[in-house]
Amino acid sequence: MASNSWKSKVLLNVLSYLDYKTGKFIIVGSKRVGSLYRVIQLSIIGYLVGYVFLSKKSYQTKEESIQSTVMTKLKGVAVTNTSEFGQMVWGPVDYVIPPQGEAVFFIVTNFIETPNQKLGNCAELWGIVPQSPNVPDGHCKGDEDCAEGELVVAGHGVRTGRCLRDNGKSNGTCEIYSWCPIERRCQPQDRHKHKNMLREAENFTIYIKNVIRFPKFSFSKANVQDTADKFHLKKCRYDEALEPYCPIFRLGDIVNQTGHSFQDMALKGGIIGILIGWECDLDRDPSECQPRYDFTHIDVNVSRESSGFNFRHARYFKTGSGESYRTHFKVFGIRINIMVHGKAGKFCIIPTIIHIGSGLACIGGGAWFCDWILLYLMKNREFYKDWKFENVKNSTTEDVKQTPEEQQLTDPSPEV
Amino acid sequence: MASNSWKSKVLLNVLSYLDYKTGKFIIVGSKRVGSLYRVIQLSIIGYLVGYVFLSKKSYQTKEESIQSTVMTKLKGVAVTNTSEFGQMVWGPVDYVIPPQGEAVFFIVTNFIETPNQKLGNCAELWGIVPQSPNVPDGHCKGDEDCAEGELVVAGHGVRTGRCLRDNGKSNGTCEIYSWCPIERRCQPQDRHKHKNMLREAENFTIYIKNVIRFPKFSFSKANVQDTADKFHLKKCRYDEALEPYCPIFRLGDIVNQTGHSFQDMALKGGIIGILIGWECDLDRDPSECQPRYDFTHIDVNVSRESSGFNFRHARYFKTGSGESYRTHFKVFGIRINIMVHGKAGKFCIIPTIIHIGSGLACIGGGAWFCDWILLYLMKNREFYKDWKFENVKNSTTEDVKQTPEEQQLTDPSPEV
Amino acid sequence: MASNSWKSKVLLNVLSYLDYKTGKFIIVGSKRVGSLYRVIQLSIIGYLVGYVFLSKKSYQTKEESIQSTVMTKLKGVAVTNTSEFGQMVWGPVDYVIPPQGEAVFFIVTNFIETPNQKLGNCAELWGIVPQSPNVPDGHCKGDEDCAEGELVVAGHGVRTGRCLRDNGKSNGTCEIYSWCPIERRCQPQDRHKHKNMLREAENFTIYIKNVIRFPKFSFSKANVQDTADKFHLKKCRYDEALEPYCPIFRLGDIVNQTGHSFQDMALKGGIIGILIGWECDLDRDPSECQPRYDFTHIDVNVSRESSGFNFRHARYFKTGSGESYRTHFKVFGIRINIMVHGKAGKFCIIPTIIHIGSGLACIGGGAWFCDWILLYLMKNREFYKDWKFENVKNSTTEDVKQTPEEQQLTDPSPEV
Repeated sequence: MASNSWKSKVLLNVLSYLDYKTGKFIIVGSKRVGSLYRVIQLSIIGYLVGYVFLSKKSYQTKEESIQSTVMTKLKGVAVTNTSEFGQMVWGPVDYVIPPQGEAVFFIVTNFIETPNQKLGNCAELWGIVPQSPNVPDGHCKGDEDCAEGELVVAGHGVRTGRCLRDNGKSNGTCEIYSWCPIERRCQPQDRHKHKNMLREAENFTIYIKNVIRFPKFSFSKANVQDTADKFHLKKCRYDEALEPYCPIFRLGDIVNQTGHSFQDMALKGGIIGILIGWECDLDRDPSECQPRYDFTHIDVNVSRESSGFNFRHARYFKTGSGESYRTHFKVFGIRINIMVHGKAGKFCIIPTIIHIGSGLACIGGGAWFCDWILLYLMKNREFYKDWKFENVKNSTTEDVKQTPEEQQLTDPSPEV
Repeated sequence: MASNSWKSKVLLNVLSYLDYKTGKFIIVGSKRVGSLYRVIQLSIIGYLVGYVFLSKKSYQTKEESIQSTVMTKLKGVAVTNTSEFGQMVWGPVDYVIPPQGEAVFFIVTNFIETPNQKLGNCAELWGIVPQSPNVPDGHCKGDEDCAEGELVVAGHGVRTGRCLRDNGKSNGTCEIYSWCPIERRCQPQDRHKHKNMLREAENFTIYIKNVIRFPKFSFSKANVQDTADKFHLKKCRYDEALEPYCPIFRLGDIVNQTGHSFQDMALKGGIIGILIGWECDLDRDPSECQPRYDFTHIDVNVSRESSGFNFRHARYFKTGSGESYRTHFKVFGIRINIMVHGKAGKFCIIPTIIHIGSGLACIGGGAWFCDWILLYLMKNREFYKDWKFENVKNSTTEDVKQTPEEQQLTDPSPEV
Repeated sequence: MASNSWKSKVLLNVLSYLDYKTGKFIIVGSKRVGSLYRVIQLSIIGYLVGYVFLSKKSYQTKEESIQSTVMTKLKGVAVTNTSEFGQMVWGPVDYVIPPQGEAVFFIVTNFIETPNQKLGNCAELWGIVPQSPNVPDGHCKGDEDCAEGELVVAGHGVRTGRCLRDNGKSNGTCEIYSWCPIERRCQPQDRHKHKNMLREAENFTIYIKNVIRFPKFSFSKANVQDTADKFHLKKCRYDEALEPYCPIFRLGDIVNQTGHSFQDMALKGGIIGILIGWECDLDRDPSECQPRYDFTHIDVNVSRESSGFNFRHARYFKTGSGESYRTHFKVFGIRINIMVHGKAGKFCIIPTIIHIGSGLACIGGGAWFCDWILLYLMKNREFYKDWKFENVKNSTTEDVKQTPEEQQLTDPSPEV
């Protein structure tokens, strides 16, 4: 019997957990505070539904670290005609550096060639030039100005200790051991530069194949559909309005879209970024996930040399007797950086719950704010306080004995 | 005395802040709603603990932008034997482009060599070939079809203005100024291609050293342990099951793991991605943070040329008299893209609080939902409403005078 | 009249939505629980304001996927003097591989040159060396040990089937068809290595131009200001303390900052990471968003060869009669990996709301915790329970008829 009563007590206890407990509310007639609360409530719900969920799609988990493979191929031929080297034909093999179709490559559009350089002694400065800012220490008045074995700052070789002077002149140039003759500076510069330019580079085409992958979602896509019309792909040219998905780009168009003149950039060189942006909503059909191309001129105005972009390379040869010589090229041109960025989103319960939870909590915060107005700012605040707070009347509270004043302050409950 | 009373009033006010205020609840006997609320509560707690914290480890802050350095080194020798060039030996110096051990590189597995090209005049089309889709404008019937100075679309050079025709034939080929003879197209194609193939490429090995860093956690790790047995590392070969951490890969195995035949891919070329995935739980021991290798064939079916992957490069030479000539290579092969991705997680209080807070708020939302059922759907809803809501009875409310009807509607509180 | 009454009823219903409903609270005199609640409340507010918002700036939305373009240019000349090849001058054209100014490049600081290699037959092992671990199968006692056509594992060519032995010796070396003579191993090693070293490499300078972009915020910046003093940029050298924004780095300084000796690294090679970190608070002025440079030695101790970093490349030549030969280089040096990472933050309402919401919810959780203490741990718990929970007294509850015991258990409300 006792055991039975104990059992039934446990059962009752368990059952009491299934009683629904809900907060007791008071209805305050104040339409002002009530309206304020409704406005807060609706604002938060509107923000949550309209901005967070519909506009920002925050119910999705996002992936921003995209994996990307880029393959490029250039087509086009250019011809240069210089008095010294005659007519030269430039194919992709010649003007694309490096040739293996990477995402970052350089297209030669202008060059200064210094052929037949051999290791030997020659003058540090080429011809009679004004004090060059690049080799400030190249001038001398006597052999004592050219210490043997010294390396010239930003120069081309090691000093032999001799000062080369023209007959009767007081100013000369230190002799150096280097690849001689040293690199040409091309006076008169401008005419010569224009002569060497690959004018037809404007019509070169760049085919870009870009395959991306979002590792979090194991989702892959290419900028060229396998189902696409192959013949169309051979003929099309990218155009933002007409052919936004054609992966073949005309070099001149790219440069023009960055707001620059092609001839200027071809002369001095430059860096152009091709930004491929993928913004994919994976809750939709994968076919809606399409790349967007943007073109931007990456400014390298402040270099140590001058504006533009150039670098030097050399081709090495040997004579029949085994002596080395080389052709030195300073090449100006357009460096293309293909940069792929993107993000994908897919529905996920976790961010959804976070946003709903935070929104609900903020509605709770709104209630707290309205309470604060009600209890501290309204005319009838004392009256509302009496209704809202009910003082526990006990003569046995363990820690504090209420003083009469406190009693008066906190216990004007109307039920009494 | 007055000051004293003022002080004690302040003290009382401060002390009243330490009174604990807790919401008053009503216990509703409805076991249905009570059970529903308990189910909601347990679901949210279960979701939070089981899914969010245990399964997804959302108590961690995540780093997904990984920094990676890759160093590669290839080993292996191949021999090709062609009637024209004789036996050739290919070491890594010859077949890896570029040679400096980067994360993206190309392995030559097949090639078409066109030796001794010189700048000069020759026919645009090589031999008697059918209308080539690549150079659609190469054919002519007379010199008038070959405008001097014109550049052929996707061709190899500039037209000289002459139409080359065999004796008596009506169809000929425009002459161009280019690197002559122009690139071989290799009829009969297939036999020749196979002949040049580097068959032994299947046994080439790729050593991959990958050092990663998660900048947010200043955590670095390499795929090769410094404590590892050096001798073992020289001999091992990666195998998903047996040697998952060996950083030396056999090229043939890699291709096979992508589901392709090595001989096919060696013939036409292809792009293979080696994905190195790092998923690191930095709350655990760093030794558990190990890379995972995956191999994928990156499809480049739709190119302008054909399927596969190839590019062209040239080696330049000079004769004793200083005349330039070159050997032109069209190389087919396997481009390897090593792509490193990863994420690391470490306990952080901020996401933990966010998830706990959102979960709690959602439990509050559940209470709101149960209230709604109780007050709008239950049979006794009016009765519950009377208990839950207590109407503030004041005759001095500032903004609204209650009409009798309103009084009746909102104030049936049972206390009255 | 009836319609009128219906209309006014609807109006009243609508108006009742603007009544403010606020939870009824009981004030519990327990200062202990009250203080605990205030402590919890203040802790959470302090954590939210101090840690989350002020310290971690979590009111911002973050972008961690940075887009980066890097352009590099090296300056400096080095001279090597070997008995065999004489004095050689090394400019950037010679020692930077690849030359086109990329983010990953290699600087030659030491090399082993094997000139005049031709395809032909020669011994697999160079001179009389001890059993080499790299070509373990190179030794033979007779022709039967050297199967014709076999490729030596990790060797240089294909076996001809002959065993080359010096007069009367029993041990010999298999003959191979390869580029002969095979690569030098340089005995005595150390002296020779030092001889070839580019000692002046320590003074080479690296100019780094880095343009970054945060796509989410469309924010771009370069590490070199366009407004900067150009002349200063030509002369300055990066120094962590004095010139933290100068983009020109001395190679020796970089190596020293990684804690290594330059001469050691120049001899055997190594990989150095230049980490450029951008941490941008876009709520502030863009000029405060500046890069931070860090230098780290990326350890490649465990390679198949030895410690350090090296690779092989070759230059191809042709004799007057068209025969190919090449100069083979094994180059040791410093590979520079420029790695750019960064994150940007900007105020955004969504994370702000999430954090505020979660904080509020956690304060609610704190109230729940205090309730639990009050109702289950305090001495007067039964008394508080009676005050907090008010039992709904109804004789018509739809699902449960209360037993007298249950009545007694859950309904000791003091109002009765």
